[in-house]
Amino acid sequence: MTTTKTTTTSTCSTQALRKSLDFVFRPRGIAVIGVGRQPTQIGHLILNNLIKAQYTGPVYPINPRAEVVRSMHCYKSVKDVPGIVDLAVIVVPAKYVIDSVKECAAKGVKGLVIITAGFAEIGGAGTALQAELEALCAKHGIRVVGPNCMGILNMEPAIQMNASFASTRPDFGGVCFVSQSGALGEAILSDAHELGIGINMFVSVGNRIDISPADLLRYWGDDPNCHQILMYLESFGNPSDFMDAARCVTRKKPVLVVKSGRSAKGAQAAISHTGSLAGSEAAADALLQQCGILRVDSMKELFSLAAVTQVGKFPRGRRVGIVTNAGGPAILATDACEAQGLEIVDLSEKTTAKIEAVIPVEASAKNPVDLIASADGKRYDKVLGAMLADKKIDMVIAIFVSPAMIDSEAVAQAFAKHANRSKKPVVTCLLGRLGKEAALDVLRESGVPNYRFPEEAVSALAGLADLEEMHSRPNRPAEKFRVNKKKARDAVEQALSRGRNMLKGTELETLFTSYGIPMVPSRIVLTLDEALKFAKKVGYPVVAKIESAKAVHKSDFGGVRLDLRTPEDLKAAYGDLKKRFHKIDKNMKVMVQAMRSGGIETFFGAAPDPQYGRLQAFGLGGIHVEVFKDVVFRLHPLSRLNAEVMVDGIRAKALLEGARGKPPVDREQLIEISLRLSQMLTDLPEIVELDLNPFLAAWDASESCVLDCRVRLEKPATK
Amino acid sequence: MTTTKTTTTSTCSTQALRKSLDFVFRPRGIAVIGVGRQPTQIGHLILNNLIKAQYTGPVYPINPRAEVVRSMHCYKSVKDVPGIVDLAVIVVPAKYVIDSVKECAAKGVKGLVIITAGFAEIGGAGTALQAELEALCAKHGIRVVGPNCMGILNMEPAIQMNASFASTRPDFGGVCFVSQSGALGEAILSDAHELGIGINMFVSVGNRIDISPADLLRYWGDDPNCHQILMYLESFGNPSDFMDAARCVTRKKPVLVVKSGRSAKGAQAAISHTGSLAGSEAAADALLQQCGILRVDSMKELFSLAAVTQVGKFPRGRRVGIVTNAGGPAILATDACEAQGLEIVDLSEKTTAKIEAVIPVEASAKNPVDLIASADGKRYDKVLGAMLADKKIDMVIAIFVSPAMIDSEAVAQAFAKHANRSKKPVVTCLLGRLGKEAALDVLRESGVPNYRFPEEAVSALAGLADLEEMHSRPNRPAEKFRVNKKKARDAVEQALSRGRNMLKGTELETLFTSYGIPMVPSRIVLTLDEALKFAKKVGYPVVAKIESAKAVHKSDFGGVRLDLRTPEDLKAAYGDLKKRFHKIDKNMKVMVQAMRSGGIETFFGAAPDPQYGRLQAFGLGGIHVEVFKDVVFRLHPLSRLNAEVMVDGIRAKALLEGARGKPPVDREQLIEISLRLSQMLTDLPEIVELDLNPFLAAWDASESCVLDCRVRLEKPATK
Repeated sequence: MTTTKTTTTSTCSTQALRKSLDFVFRPRGIAVIGVGRQPTQIGHLILNNLIKAQYTGPVYPINPRAEVVRSMHCYKSVKDVPGIVDLAVIVVPAKYVIDSVKECAAKGVKGLVIITAGFAEIGGAGTALQAELEALCAKHGIRVVGPNCMGILNMEPAIQMNASFASTRPDFGGVCFVSQSGALGEAILSDAHELGIGINMFVSVGNRIDISPADLLRYWGDDPNCHQILMYLESFGNPSDFMDAARCVTRKKPVLVVKSGRSAKGAQAAISHTGSLAGSEAAADALLQQCGILRVDSMKELFSLAAVTQVGKFPRGRRVGIVTNAGGPAILATDACEAQGLEIVDLSEKTTAKIEAVIPVEASAKNPVDLIASADGKRYDKVLGAMLADKKIDMVIAIFVSPAMIDSEAVAQAFAKHANRSKKPVVTCLLGRLGKEAALDVLRESGVPNYRFPEEAVSALAGLADLEEMHSRPNRPAEKFRVNKKKARDAVEQALSRGRNMLKGTELETLFTSYGIPMVPSRIVLTLDEALKFAKKVGYPVVAKIESAKAVHKSDFGGVRLDLRTPEDLKAAYGDLKKRFHKIDKNMKVMVQAMRSGGIETFFGAAPDPQYGRLQAFGLGGIHVEVFKDVVFRLHPLSRLNAEVMVDGIRAKALLEGARGKPPVDREQLIEISLRLSQMLTDLPEIVELDLNPFLAAWDASESCVLDCRVRLEKPATK
Repeated sequence: MTTTKTTTTSTCSTQALRKSLDFVFRPRGIAVIGVGRQPTQIGHLILNNLIKAQYTGPVYPINPRAEVVRSMHCYKSVKDVPGIVDLAVIVVPAKYVIDSVKECAAKGVKGLVIITAGFAEIGGAGTALQAELEALCAKHGIRVVGPNCMGILNMEPAIQMNASFASTRPDFGGVCFVSQSGALGEAILSDAHELGIGINMFVSVGNRIDISPADLLRYWGDDPNCHQILMYLESFGNPSDFMDAARCVTRKKPVLVVKSGRSAKGAQAAISHTGSLAGSEAAADALLQQCGILRVDSMKELFSLAAVTQVGKFPRGRRVGIVTNAGGPAILATDACEAQGLEIVDLSEKTTAKIEAVIPVEASAKNPVDLIASADGKRYDKVLGAMLADKKIDMVIAIFVSPAMIDSEAVAQAFAKHANRSKKPVVTCLLGRLGKEAALDVLRESGVPNYRFPEEAVSALAGLADLEEMHSRPNRPAEKFRVNKKKARDAVEQALSRGRNMLKGTELETLFTSYGIPMVPSRIVLTLDEALKFAKKVGYPVVAKIESAKAVHKSDFGGVRLDLRTPEDLKAAYGDLKKRFHKIDKNMKVMVQAMRSGGIETFFGAAPDPQYGRLQAFGLGGIHVEVFKDVVFRLHPLSRLNAEVMVDGIRAKALLEGARGKPPVDREQLIEISLRLSQMLTDLPEIVELDLNPFLAAWDASESCVLDCRVRLEKPATK
């Protein structure tokens, strides 16, 4: 973000992309195909909106059966238009769209906004028609927004285009917004002024047969008028294309998204831990995190946050200063700060002295600084100046409840002055609107984000801090470890060639040790004698487990016997396991393992996602995975930062750091295991799912090892 | 709430309370003492506000140095007023307040609103002055709001009193609001119209030397004009008085609160689990829950929810029907429902058929029902009628994004019609405000709660469902168990008489078994021989632990040896414990215990709270308490419902119900243990803190027992 990085000069889009999208968003002339005489007809509305917004180029209404609409000459076909038509907005019924596009191609139109619905969204014939449309446009190299969309806006003064049926003219500003729901888009545009949002471009993408959110990210990434990007998405289209675009753009400007469909039930039905935990939503979360996009939960939050990110100032840390003229709202703000991980810190002595010099004795110079009801613009002015100069403060909330005797406009002016001068983010909370219109106007016109309630102001600052943190951690590429790829591949291919999709004990050992991931010494034994010999070799206590394809979660079935301390213990356990499980699985075997303890049982996993590729997971082992769902996911492959964030991101992190008199475990080792697994998954695409559960993170890191694991393979589709 | 209970006729207030507060809130005449000539002077403002609100009685300005203010005759003293003065509003400087009160007493004034600041909130002399004031008012039996407050309002048509300096006149309605922050109150009153809230009474309580939130709860509880109560509180005053009042009122009408100060650092520094977890906030949460008050996190939520609770309709369950004309907002609403524990259920076949009959083929009759953009008032009307008639639906969200060709006012009328007719709660979400003022007015005037974003509408319904659930579970009194109170008291008194505040092993056993709480067989042994004998008696495996006042959390220091299976194991462990801990504590002893497993380790606790008495806690044992803080608190004594909610309320509840192939544990047993502990705490007030950690909830409930415990005593102050 602006405070942490020098502006990067690398571009996110190709010149070709920019040029092709310029025809759509900065057209030299626009035809509206399908303009009716009725003022409520959609084509008519769009024509009207283009004119009302004072589009700077010529607009040509097209209608074969009308000669004049809205006092304008109507052309029978776009081909008849005398001037250049870069963009055509198509509103004709679905069955006429193909013909219209052909005429556009003949005319040399470069871009289309297809409003018409009745394509893939209705299925059947609509899907076929959409395929035909897509092929036709691709053939002629015409860029398309839609079909089944609400249109586009570009409010920059040189263009002033409202090619949509949203009858609104938002203020010009730095926000570009792409919405997969036209309705939400319309609502937002209509409220943009009240929400304090200035719009640069808006795109309702519709069925997106061509122009995708990824294209727009690239295009807007290189547009100096665009200061931030907001998105309402229901899906990502091509996830890797989207990630690629987003990774570039988020280095330059904030990108915020509401991704809906959290409650979709389409998660895959996998038997392993990872699979059943992940679902597409975990993948979507991971994807957004990994490309630096901040996901918020609601439209309300999206615009609350956008009002402050559009200012372009980001905090260096999470320390908040509050200045208020009333106690209650400041207490609420303080509570909200703590809940959202922001800190209310003490001010420096110098600042405190400066504040004490200008406030009455009944007021409080401690953060939150309470200027009491008599505070006027002058007092706020001096105190804000002192507070913003304090190096211990990263951002400021100025709260004002207007007592009848105070000039609220003067207070707002003091707020605006400091918000604009300081490099630190300043938000305001002017409680109670009635009779404060003038003060609110001052804040709006000065671009100061103002919130009705203190909790909203805090949420916005917390989002700002999250966004900055997301981008301020250095992201080195993952180191490449020396591994024995050949040996690991052999193990995998051996299993596949024998028609198995689950790796066996020895194969697992080969696989993991080839990638430098330590395994607990273990052996599958065929006889009791063999078991006793192995136990003697590794030393007691040992563990005995069943090995059977019919029991995935062995311990659920009593198939794991821990802490066998003597040959007698082992003998009894071996006999019992054999007796009990033989009837379930005649091919069951017993595995004997050295018993390891003295550490924290963790969990590493990988699982396929139908849309996004493979997900990696880290969490605490055992019931922590299952019951508390204390797991962090990232899409494979992992960067070094991804692995760090996974290990640091579990709720039970305190356990890893040493809780209740226990030593800490080796954080670096856990990060390395994640990265080694990532490298393994890259090298061996056949591995679609794996669970190391538990991986013992031992107090003595040299004793850490995999205690149990599963690996599931799938033959690659093409090889 | 209205849907679940017959109106109770029992009163919450005494006749004396009602009568005394009627003088304050329904005065026959008001004096404003300290009215200046300046229009911005506070007394002048209040006088002005009383007149502007058209107070139905006479108002008398008092000022010894002015003859006329605002064309009204000014009296030199309240004593000179010719008519009855029930209420005096005092605005004179602090040093003159006592004299003014004396004059009021002489005049026979029954109630005071003391606006003046400069009392206990400034400490020192202010505190003394407040004490004098309090004593004076008490002596004369005068009821007081304040000092240091913003004033009071009563908007009921027969009174129309704005005795505050908030220059606003809210719409009359069923909401009574008490605020510990005048500033927040002012903000709310000023926004009430826009928020769709109708105000009955408002009280800024200030330093509350007399009239407390508890008094107001009782008074409003019996006021038929008051349909719901909102509170902004920073503290509860006298918690047991508050609870007593709240328990009565919440049986009759919804009470919602924002309680600030969550981040206060004033939690007690106790060494035990419970103590370190609780803090005053857990106690405040428990208190509110236990008296049926819904706590919300922010002012925003408070008013969002108030707009729907004031309608007075409550859902029978959590099943939501959504009707929309656009997909995006419906998806957001669906996501929000899932996140907030509301269900989007399938409609009945009959309803589906009715809906299909009136919608176009492209629309969807499945919940969320999408009527598509062409939907007008008529279509909404029919579909809402069908949906609300469906027994599978408990409440409805109607979403509308206005396409240019649709009459949005007609749609709003359809919304209002059904919202008013149906017994089920209906909320609306009209996206995009610009140009929809007429539609918004229809909703506001019909009292239909409307929200800008679908997520807000869902939050409001979720709050409504929470409130209903809170009140719909039957709350039987806790059963009284047969216990040996005498024996338990002897054990406690033995320890106290010997100068100990921690119970010893045998005392613990006596205490818990006297209350029917099973303990694992254990003995403190003085020699190895004694240890071996005891182990033989209870059977191996056994556990050996240190017994030392210097190690509270024994396992943190390696002071617990589990699973000793043979005399040799026990011998080694005993020797080792002795060797290691003797140097730390020469008086350390060893406890030998039968080893129990095969169940879930849970946690029961009790801890003192400086404000609220003793808190009881239930959670999972071990690290679950510490790391995941998966604990539910309730204030002692527990009702049966409290105990049920505690056991059912932990996040890891699935574990108790049998996760991953394990059997469930006996829920009823856990509830009973909580209640037995509650009874013990009632009988033995000396017990200020206890931890049963772990209490093994065994798969076979007859084997459940306390595995480890601590009990801390304090001599009661008076005996």
